[in-house]
Amino acid sequence: MFTPRKARVRSAITLLLFICLLPSARAQNDPLPSWNNTTPRQTIIDFVRRVTRQGSPDFVPVDQRIAAFDNDGTLWVEQPMYTELAFVLQRIHQLAPKHPTWKATQPFKGVLEGDIKAVAASGDKGAMQLLAAAETNMSVDEFHKIVLDWLATAQHPRFKRPYTQCVYQPMLELLTYLRANGFKTFIVSGGSVEFMRPWTEQVYGVPPEQVVGTTVKTKFETLNGQADLLRLPEVTFVDDKEGKPVGISTNIGRRPIAAFGNSDGDLQMLQYTTAGPGPRLALLVHHTDAAREYAYDRKSSMGRLDKALDEAEAKGWIVVDMKNDWKTIFPPQH
Amino acid sequence: MFTPRKARVRSAITLLLFICLLPSARAQNDPLPSWNNTTPRQTIIDFVRRVTRQGSPDFVPVDQRIAAFDNDGTLWVEQPMYTELAFVLQRIHQLAPKHPTWKATQPFKGVLEGDIKAVAASGDKGAMQLLAAAETNMSVDEFHKIVLDWLATAQHPRFKRPYTQCVYQPMLELLTYLRANGFKTFIVSGGSVEFMRPWTEQVYGVPPEQVVGTTVKTKFETLNGQADLLRLPEVTFVDDKEGKPVGISTNIGRRPIAAFGNSDGDLQMLQYTTAGPGPRLALLVHHTDAAREYAYDRKSSMGRLDKALDEAEAKGWIVVDMKNDWKTIFPPQH
Repeated sequence: MFTPRKARVRSAITLLLFICLLPSARAQNDPLPSWNNTTPRQTIIDFVRRVTRQGSPDFVPVDQRIAAFDNDGTLWVEQPMYTELAFVLQRIHQLAPKHPTWKATQPFKGVLEGDIKAVAASGDKGAMQLLAAAETNMSVDEFHKIVLDWLATAQHPRFKRPYTQCVYQPMLELLTYLRANGFKTFIVSGGSVEFMRPWTEQVYGVPPEQVVGTTVKTKFETLNGQADLLRLPEVTFVDDKEGKPVGISTNIGRRPIAAFGNSDGDLQMLQYTTAGPGPRLALLVHHTDAAREYAYDRKSSMGRLDKALDEAEAKGWIVVDMKNDWKTIFPPQH
Repeated sequence: MFTPRKARVRSAITLLLFICLLPSARAQNDPLPSWNNTTPRQTIIDFVRRVTRQGSPDFVPVDQRIAAFDNDGTLWVEQPMYTELAFVLQRIHQLAPKHPTWKATQPFKGVLEGDIKAVAASGDKGAMQLLAAAETNMSVDEFHKIVLDWLATAQHPRFKRPYTQCVYQPMLELLTYLRANGFKTFIVSGGSVEFMRPWTEQVYGVPPEQVVGTTVKTKFETLNGQADLLRLPEVTFVDDKEGKPVGISTNIGRRPIAAFGNSDGDLQMLQYTTAGPGPRLALLVHHTDAAREYAYDRKSSMGRLDKALDEAEAKGWIVVDMKNDWKTIFPPQH
């Protein structure tokens, strides 16, 4: 039997359910929950709406929705040093017992003694020697395994979590949001391409073939009777600064409509991206949050943001103020 | 009112419909209708079933289903000369009025006079000069436009149809069949990568970023106030023979599980592909059909199939006998 009292109870329950479910439904519908509702978030969402809405004057067909992301400092932490540099230094320590001459030879001596100034003084040539020792004279598959083994145990010195968890939660959400809207997401990094490929799919949802980076000479050889590829100690392409648009052209074959970076090393990629016709999105992550992450820009030795910051202001590119625009920095630790 | 006569008529109609629809339903279910039901077709279908069936000992996760296809002679006709060579020679003729010295200088003189022997005598250096003249000192976007404009009017000398319709219908079906089974299809060609990228998506369903090929030096420049990429007259990578596995590694970042070629230029790609663990598929298209296409192998100047044919026989790779294994060669002309 239906009574006014039952009706009131039912209404109250319905209302309660509605109130309880509303925030969670809203949260589920928010594609960028770790972003504060400031200009960067609004500009990104407006851009995606414009390029995806059929009939919009800014509509971009799915096959042209190419988005390029820098890695160090844009998708994951690059302080106090690039993760790949931490890897290289640790490899040198691991390999040192097999190379007794390193104790007396720079830049290896500097690495083994923790004398960063001596290492820095060895310049590009020294850096190349370290890279060659740590990352070459092995097959591509062997190098991938070495990288994965290292990442499985290495920890960030400050955040005390694996490097693959020192990634920016707001940027993970942005990658997912763009892909959900038909974008193909690429990484375009100054780091060694084979240092990233073994884990980018799992961490960022970006498969190996969508990762562009610095390359070494690779030689086809028959090793132990099996056709394989050997990494040789010679850099063939540096995917940084002017190299980034070149890497994009060589590997992707078309101009992105959106690009994301955090340093002067990304400036040319953003210039190239925004120089094409139609709607374009360029974004710089500005590290302004010493409490939760790091604060650095014009004078940093890694990830210097100087010229690109001026150009962003002049051209109206999005500049993310990490402290004010991001609710959270890292994903929940697991 | 229901009568036995009506019932009989209805049964007859049902039967008729069944008979009429059956062959078309069967044709629709056949993923490779242009392939005769010979060993190559059976081996391909068996391979795809094994790697895609959950629980099969040969099951391969979707993200590892990488397939690499040579282009010239594997996906489209490469006789009487590579299509890109036809393009280069025609460009030289078009550009000659602006280069009066070419009349007296090899290899240009040879091209303009149709003296193929003189051109051949100029060797690799001459070939590079022709390539540089035809394909460089312009932006990447400009080159793409030149290629598309040429393809829009050029015709194959024998088949009298656009080159983009001189593609092999059985291979188009194979590309589609593999993609329908979760494979990501790549082109890995000795040709210039930017000669292919403007049209591979439309013709083969392969987007630009899944095309690997020979590259020239590309330079980031600001042209007319806009950031752009300039093609320079210097080959930086030759994606042929030993280069193919290297191009695969650099651009794709993982070893394919299936590779398709037609010449000795594809041998190392097939060796590299089949040297990985787990199920592997290697296929060579053997041009045996002088009536419908061309017949050539061990002594051809373009697309020579000699060592790779021996290795295919020794290792049990699929060798497609074009004459006997393919029902049709080209798609219907449109």
